[in-house]
Amino acid sequence: MNGADALVATLGANGIEVVFANAGTSEMHVVAALDGAPGLRPVLCLFEGVATGAADGYARVSGGVAATLLHLGPGLANGWANLHNARRAGVPVLNVVGVHPDAHDRLDPPLSSRVGQLAASLGGAVTTVHRTADVPAAAAQALASARHPRAQVSTLLVPADVAWSPFGDAPSRWPTVVAPEPVAPAPDDVARALGWLRAGRAALVVGGALTSTDLSRAAAVAQATGARLLLETFPTIVDHGAGTPSPERIVYLSDFAIPQLSGLDRVVLVGAAEPVGFFAYPDLPSRLLGAGCQVLDLGGRGAHPATALALLAAAAEADGGPGDAAPPPAVPSGPLTPVTFAAAVAATVPEGAIVVDEANTGGVHLYDALAGAAPHRLMTLTGGAIGFGLPAALGAALASDAPVIALVADGALEYTTQALWSLAREDLDVTVVVVANAAYDILRLERARLGPLPTSGASHLLTDLGSPVIDHVSLARAYGVPARRVESADELVTALARRAPGHSGPQLIEVPLAPLAL
Amino acid sequence: MNGADALVATLGANGIEVVFANAGTSEMHVVAALDGAPGLRPVLCLFEGVATGAADGYARVSGGVAATLLHLGPGLANGWANLHNARRAGVPVLNVVGVHPDAHDRLDPPLSSRVGQLAASLGGAVTTVHRTADVPAAAAQALASARHPRAQVSTLLVPADVAWSPFGDAPSRWPTVVAPEPVAPAPDDVARALGWLRAGRAALVVGGALTSTDLSRAAAVAQATGARLLLETFPTIVDHGAGTPSPERIVYLSDFAIPQLSGLDRVVLVGAAEPVGFFAYPDLPSRLLGAGCQVLDLGGRGAHPATALALLAAAAEADGGPGDAAPPPAVPSGPLTPVTFAAAVAATVPEGAIVVDEANTGGVHLYDALAGAAPHRLMTLTGGAIGFGLPAALGAALASDAPVIALVADGALEYTTQALWSLAREDLDVTVVVVANAAYDILRLERARLGPLPTSGASHLLTDLGSPVIDHVSLARAYGVPARRVESADELVTALARRAPGHSGPQLIEVPLAPLAL
Repeated sequence: MNGADALVATLGANGIEVVFANAGTSEMHVVAALDGAPGLRPVLCLFEGVATGAADGYARVSGGVAATLLHLGPGLANGWANLHNARRAGVPVLNVVGVHPDAHDRLDPPLSSRVGQLAASLGGAVTTVHRTADVPAAAAQALASARHPRAQVSTLLVPADVAWSPFGDAPSRWPTVVAPEPVAPAPDDVARALGWLRAGRAALVVGGALTSTDLSRAAAVAQATGARLLLETFPTIVDHGAGTPSPERIVYLSDFAIPQLSGLDRVVLVGAAEPVGFFAYPDLPSRLLGAGCQVLDLGGRGAHPATALALLAAAAEADGGPGDAAPPPAVPSGPLTPVTFAAAVAATVPEGAIVVDEANTGGVHLYDALAGAAPHRLMTLTGGAIGFGLPAALGAALASDAPVIALVADGALEYTTQALWSLAREDLDVTVVVVANAAYDILRLERARLGPLPTSGASHLLTDLGSPVIDHVSLARAYGVPARRVESADELVTALARRAPGHSGPQLIEVPLAPLAL
Repeated sequence: MNGADALVATLGANGIEVVFANAGTSEMHVVAALDGAPGLRPVLCLFEGVATGAADGYARVSGGVAATLLHLGPGLANGWANLHNARRAGVPVLNVVGVHPDAHDRLDPPLSSRVGQLAASLGGAVTTVHRTADVPAAAAQALASARHPRAQVSTLLVPADVAWSPFGDAPSRWPTVVAPEPVAPAPDDVARALGWLRAGRAALVVGGALTSTDLSRAAAVAQATGARLLLETFPTIVDHGAGTPSPERIVYLSDFAIPQLSGLDRVVLVGAAEPVGFFAYPDLPSRLLGAGCQVLDLGGRGAHPATALALLAAAAEADGGPGDAAPPPAVPSGPLTPVTFAAAVAATVPEGAIVVDEANTGGVHLYDALAGAAPHRLMTLTGGAIGFGLPAALGAALASDAPVIALVADGALEYTTQALWSLAREDLDVTVVVVANAAYDILRLERARLGPLPTSGASHLLTDLGSPVIDHVSLARAYGVPARRVESADELVTALARRAPGHSGPQLIEVPLAPLAL
């Protein structure tokens, strides 16, 4: 048994079942160790951003720690953007990154880099194993960091010589990390929050990972107190659809969010951060709440919204039944627009599905349209680093038997197209819907703030994806994913609904949408 | 005029002509400023690794500073791997990265990250502009850092409010940075190096960016002194082909490089680092030179090899004519193998072409085969972060009117496939040859060191790209690049040679090769 074997054994003893991997020579002993650990499923990703985005999606759906295996500084860097999203989602991800032995690294070989500094820039924990004997303890420590209540992206740096050196015999048991108990808000804070919510001009803002029970409690609290119930703009994963309250969502653009929130004097946060603008603007405040609005955080992102909501509901003696049910979705017909696109998804989403929303501007109507759809779970882009949707769908599909619907804007798709290959390879029930408006539409909108949108020159060239038009059907086929393009809402409904139960494997549907008229 | 206008004007005044860009909202004022700077060509890349790899290729070919425009932490992180390669190539790249205003960033919006730490992890200079009035000076400082003799990847962080705030009137001139004078080695060192080379059992090891003149001088010095002439394994860009000496290249794998270098007592480095193993191995030393071998560095990587070689040649009174000419390439026929693949490229490479070699295991015969080919320039993967080839070809084609041949392994291609779209959009004369063995073959080789290569399980799953097989013809067509697959060396020769002079636009040729028999 060598250090790599000890590492893999410790991961397995801690319930890690899947490793999203793009390994290289410096991780080859870890790869070989995985041969001896059939309970640990390696999933090859052709690019590290796929591996880390899949880990994010896997962690959101499973509720447990997701693991990646990455190759030195460049591998970690390639995965950085989706790890940023995972950090913002507050989900636990453990990166195992192979690095050079110290003595080798000091000679500055080509792949040497400031990998420790790079890992630290992710804002999570960084653990380096210095001796082979320390592997189990270091791996456990890294897992504990990932599982901290303010869950973190945790990176374990494993020098190749630590992996290949003899470890000795396996211990009678490997160190295991117990998931920490949920953190509850202080009773005084709960009482204070309740008082605030009852005082009028107040809102309960929820976010993070929310079950149907959580959302029902939140809705009951809002009903009992007369407060508004709001959902953060980009929650981690929420139960959604018929039977689950669908809170009003805080609007993405500051221009609209500021008036949406302007009537509030008090805000109680549960699992959500204080609403701030996604971007700064010369003429808009960064804080979206009015200047005098008070904020009370019942735990904040990373704490346990479920516990806070249960306490709040109990204190409010709120158990109200289901609120106003959203109407069941109508089957749309006619031209493809953001409205008919959303309606088509809502009309066809299978019960129990996981919906990944990275449709961006094309997806503005999805959340409301899906409110009355068959019950499902909804994941969103928490950190703003596009390229999340396809990999997250990969991870979600590996964490669950549920069908997965990935709604991805064409611009966002291009950051991690390689995930299509892993979807085909793993034969996963994932339907990818590419919302293709052939533009960075949100940037066209932002550019139009500064004056009329030019039809040529840099502003056009840097927001236009239409020259050449990307053929997503060819792209999918390149990776072994069956694909088709639809030209109407009717065709989209047919394409989404036609999948027979028991069908396996991914498919892709290209949905052309016109860019915004600006 | 605002800060963004001042930034763009300063870049233009310093000779920046192309910006490889993937901008977002926080860079929108810079994008708008580019509308008013028609001399600065924005090239949209669908993924930041394409932008940074293109900048690397552009800088290698142009000899000047290449510029990127990137979006916050995730954008820089996505570009990190190819910036690592650029740093290892010793070429100057300036990254302009938009970040949040300080006051906005303190509120921790979704895209906030430790971007300064991330930038520092690249190992180059990091400059933050704090006031709009400081934009020209900060941009000039960042350019100077990029142009430092030990050329660096230089990152300029531009908060959005610095970009959008009023700058006032343009100055009578913008600050400009003069490229520093070439650094010459000390005369004593030149004399000492000459003595070493004459003493027997010595080698002159050259690397970096080398012209035909540089290589002729190096060969003449070797001839006059009796020393061996060696080329580093992965040079930045070298003149190559008929009429240019083609030094023996240090072998990639330590197993072969150690015996290759074992007879040496003294090594003089010019533009190359001391040879060290690419990776560490339990049973091999990291230093590839024998234990007693002395090393003298006449400037080191980042200094000016041309100056050192001129001084060395003058001191040696070496002006020897051309050495042994490599034989002109023969046109191959029959099955596709690494040998016939290399021969086909050599037989057809257009005079003056730029050849980008990221063919990895499939390309082991390229360097020698190309020695007698039409004169060309050859770029290699300097930093080991795969995904360099396609983007570098994009940058090379924008820096030169020369035809570009990109030889890219299928595994490496997958890190930056999106470059195909930019090749089509910019209508560049780039021929992409995908060497498709449907495996991470080098990893299969490395894995086989540890014992018989399994045909299933993790070691197989993490090195096999054959399930599903990637269809590179479909992939290219998705991005508007005409493509074909060849099945023999004859077909490859025809495909490579058929391009008529004056033909514009990219093409892709898929070359299936068998994986190594292990």
